[in-house]
Amino acid sequence: MRIALCQINPTVGDLEGNAEIILGAARRAAGAGAELAVFPELCIVGYPPMDLLDRPQFIDDAMDAVRYVASSAPAGLGMIVGAPVRNGASMGKRLHNAALLLEDGRIVASAAKALLPTYDVFDEYRHFEPGPARHLVHFRGVALGLHVCEDVWNNEEAPPYHLYGRNPVDELAELGAQLFVNISASPFAVGKEAARTKVVAATCREHGLPFVYVNQVGANTELIFDGDSRVHDAAGRVVARAKRFVDDMLVWDTAAPVAPAPAPDAAAAALIHDALVLGIRDYMSKTGAFGKALLGLSGGIDSAVTCALAAEALGSERVVGVTMPSAYSSAGSVDDSRTLAENLGIEFQEISIRPAVDAFQAMLAPPFTGRAPDVTEENLQARARGVTLMALSNKFGYLLLTTGNKSEMAVGYATLYGDMNGGLAVLSDVFKTEVYDLANEINARAGREVIPRSTITKPPSAELRPGQTDQDSLPPYAVLDPILEAYVERHLDVRGVAEATGADPTLVERIARMVDRAEFKRRQAAPGLRVSTKAFGMGRRLPIVMRRTRVAAPAGAGSFADVPSRTA
Amino acid sequence: MRIALCQINPTVGDLEGNAEIILGAARRAAGAGAELAVFPELCIVGYPPMDLLDRPQFIDDAMDAVRYVASSAPAGLGMIVGAPVRNGASMGKRLHNAALLLEDGRIVASAAKALLPTYDVFDEYRHFEPGPARHLVHFRGVALGLHVCEDVWNNEEAPPYHLYGRNPVDELAELGAQLFVNISASPFAVGKEAARTKVVAATCREHGLPFVYVNQVGANTELIFDGDSRVHDAAGRVVARAKRFVDDMLVWDTAAPVAPAPAPDAAAAALIHDALVLGIRDYMSKTGAFGKALLGLSGGIDSAVTCALAAEALGSERVVGVTMPSAYSSAGSVDDSRTLAENLGIEFQEISIRPAVDAFQAMLAPPFTGRAPDVTEENLQARARGVTLMALSNKFGYLLLTTGNKSEMAVGYATLYGDMNGGLAVLSDVFKTEVYDLANEINARAGREVIPRSTITKPPSAELRPGQTDQDSLPPYAVLDPILEAYVERHLDVRGVAEATGADPTLVERIARMVDRAEFKRRQAAPGLRVSTKAFGMGRRLPIVMRRTRVAAPAGAGSFADVPSRTA
Repeated sequence: MRIALCQINPTVGDLEGNAEIILGAARRAAGAGAELAVFPELCIVGYPPMDLLDRPQFIDDAMDAVRYVASSAPAGLGMIVGAPVRNGASMGKRLHNAALLLEDGRIVASAAKALLPTYDVFDEYRHFEPGPARHLVHFRGVALGLHVCEDVWNNEEAPPYHLYGRNPVDELAELGAQLFVNISASPFAVGKEAARTKVVAATCREHGLPFVYVNQVGANTELIFDGDSRVHDAAGRVVARAKRFVDDMLVWDTAAPVAPAPAPDAAAAALIHDALVLGIRDYMSKTGAFGKALLGLSGGIDSAVTCALAAEALGSERVVGVTMPSAYSSAGSVDDSRTLAENLGIEFQEISIRPAVDAFQAMLAPPFTGRAPDVTEENLQARARGVTLMALSNKFGYLLLTTGNKSEMAVGYATLYGDMNGGLAVLSDVFKTEVYDLANEINARAGREVIPRSTITKPPSAELRPGQTDQDSLPPYAVLDPILEAYVERHLDVRGVAEATGADPTLVERIARMVDRAEFKRRQAAPGLRVSTKAFGMGRRLPIVMRRTRVAAPAGAGSFADVPSRTA
Repeated sequence: MRIALCQINPTVGDLEGNAEIILGAARRAAGAGAELAVFPELCIVGYPPMDLLDRPQFIDDAMDAVRYVASSAPAGLGMIVGAPVRNGASMGKRLHNAALLLEDGRIVASAAKALLPTYDVFDEYRHFEPGPARHLVHFRGVALGLHVCEDVWNNEEAPPYHLYGRNPVDELAELGAQLFVNISASPFAVGKEAARTKVVAATCREHGLPFVYVNQVGANTELIFDGDSRVHDAAGRVVARAKRFVDDMLVWDTAAPVAPAPAPDAAAAALIHDALVLGIRDYMSKTGAFGKALLGLSGGIDSAVTCALAAEALGSERVVGVTMPSAYSSAGSVDDSRTLAENLGIEFQEISIRPAVDAFQAMLAPPFTGRAPDVTEENLQARARGVTLMALSNKFGYLLLTTGNKSEMAVGYATLYGDMNGGLAVLSDVFKTEVYDLANEINARAGREVIPRSTITKPPSAELRPGQTDQDSLPPYAVLDPILEAYVERHLDVRGVAEATGADPTLVERIARMVDRAEFKRRQAAPGLRVSTKAFGMGRRLPIVMRRTRVAAPAGAGSFADVPSRTA
């Protein structure tokens, strides 16, 4: 049987557009001789639909779109699509996250997702009831072990611990499945390709069955989907792979001889590059609200890398860079910004913020009488720039990109309503050390110095007061970033971070408190493109109002482990 | 048996502070002759702890705090406290949300929450595994049907539909419970008191058992907890009630004769008033980072009401109001602001924003050549005000309050990085029509005109261009607010909203699109105090990048209801 893995890029909520994308791919699949075309999880509505799922009419409309797809499909082609469907039981959440088999113009079978990821960026139990039982889906004599995304990820936590009390793929194998089919909406993170290969290959080997894995591609707000659809043979080897970060279709014949298709080598920086380019491009194209992207160029590496990524994503004719010198800007900063703009061929403007800063300082002179300059005056400069950029954005319909990196966002080295202004944060999940890798990647791909050498080599500085550098008050980024990674992404406490990184516990304590205190800024940050397994934003939810204190338990006090009835 | 219902106000993460609050209440309970002191859900860590629960050390520290409380408790007093505890099973989420019975210095019994709210502001399945089975907790000869918050809310959805497949209180009754004890962290919303009474009373009547209900009080970031702890007798009547919106303790003797304790009459505006005052007060006191609250006074009703609530919460000496006239401000606006400040006795400043606006316009004149004035220039004014207020906030350590109401936040009538600047949004869950009710409530309580009459009677206007009023481009708020309520809070579609409100579908369509399009602004809004069952913010999660299209299903196409195997 020839099966088409249709790695498509849907837009959240765009039922009409998604239906047409699905039908277009279905026609190409039929043209390539496929009998079955498999599409990603929830492809009718786009992932993640979030609280659109709370709207009853949206669910009805999604089912209408499924019926439209079914009735418009090429003759003779079976299709598997993902859609939210109503839970027919009188208990539980109102919906299931289902894989539907369409044939001869009708919905002929359905499999409801059993394992509902509800952690990090995932909120599936917010809307969906787990599918209560497994069953095979029969298609032209083949017993499909059809399931949805997380259903194959039951091994995710370290053995022997499992995050869920069920194993749907085991159940499907026991029922007699001949081929696993997984439809996914699995977002990109560095390391995700290897993780997918590991879990899918283990499943194949355990049950001696081949595996078709079809994932969404494209970006929807924060989440970037890399595709990475593939076929594994019964021995677990990857025997066909779709391209990553682009729409693609793989046609695989279950009877064809197989040869391993190894993963192309890709360094983290190269993957992050491609992910961010896709993230920028899809934000622009899917909102459809902006003619160009706009950003402030400081002469520093963050804005330079963001600018180069935007030019790659949109074309240089759709990127506008603005340098906004103040009294504290070095001449080099303006020159480096101009050089970058010339290297990229983008529109470049220079607007001095001194008139606005001077005006604010005059307005505030009476209330500030007798007060020494402090961070207030630094913020005024960042905010004068932010207002200037937003005025250009409003007047010309440009999308303002913010350029802050993950290290800065972690410790709060960013000005709310200043340099944090913008509709999309490109680097907010990229540590500073990784931004340098990205700069080198960009120059290496171009085969020339796109990002000026002096931008890469100068000491990082916000240039908000004379002679300021980031390292005045922060450790070197090579020390800081591992601390942040351990604290933010691995949830370690101060002692654990110090042990994991070798850093001084006093320094770790200071950094951890900076991270906690900056939560109020991050809550108001622009949505940021996610490239790690723990980005700031929707996947990391911490209280703003909190204290973090502890109290020692007395020696000899009972512990919870002593309680006889426990959770019984 | 004498039972103390200890309605306390914990701070999220403050294990030491919360332990001391618990022990203080325990000593008062013992002093009042109580044998058992009952505390709210997760009181050791404060609700909602959010992703602090992802940190293993935090869980260990919470257990240490429980052991400290157990070992420091007054002699002879049993205590029931709420805490996160580790799931001892090898499958499922790592934690349970537990009620722990402490006696003689030890944890002697535990009951794990079975129903985990995962909707709106609640994310409990993100962290907790449902308690797998029910058991009674025996305390001095009484079989307690001990359970946690949502466990009693299985009737929440309209009958015959139930949101969960279990009913823990039924199970406890079947096991032979003699008294239900529910520990809760149930946030305030208008109408919540009646909803609690209904569900608890129904439980009492169904099983013929009395019911002790202990709820958290106080605000943690967005969520305001009203307390409303109570005892119902076996007939379902409320026979003892704690005060709302303040710490309180009720001591109830199971053997004492009972008399009904009816709910005090309270109009929605009075409850919202008290909730918002508590919200402001706790944000200030629990962060501990700000000396005073600061806000811009426009002469309009939103800023006037916010200012009066802040003065009530903090004392007039801790509130600073700033009027910032522009070329378009009416003389009345400055006068009304000054009058308000005088009525409240708060500090008042006047800072003209004209120098900053003029400076920005001069800076932007070259790129804006040939472009007509539009919303850009309006936003410049709002942003000049926002920068001015943030400068005062930074210099003096004041908390900037934002003043936008729910109607404006819904349709996007607010300037990002302008009047949306601030750390806490006081009215963002209060519709404009309700803001008027609040103004009248404030004046009625004061017995004088605190909010100037002219502020209440003038047509609402942003005063960002000559002669502007809100009704230039919006329907009257008496028409708009019901549309918004139906669209935002009840998830109806355009046709449903039109039917529910009697509004013209074309108008509803226009408003719905405005609401959807403004999502990018709300994602960057300050956290807002929640007083309804559906506030903007953490409890309403919609994509920024989305389209909302539909496609008609062909007549005669199959539907999901035809699928034989469905979810089986």
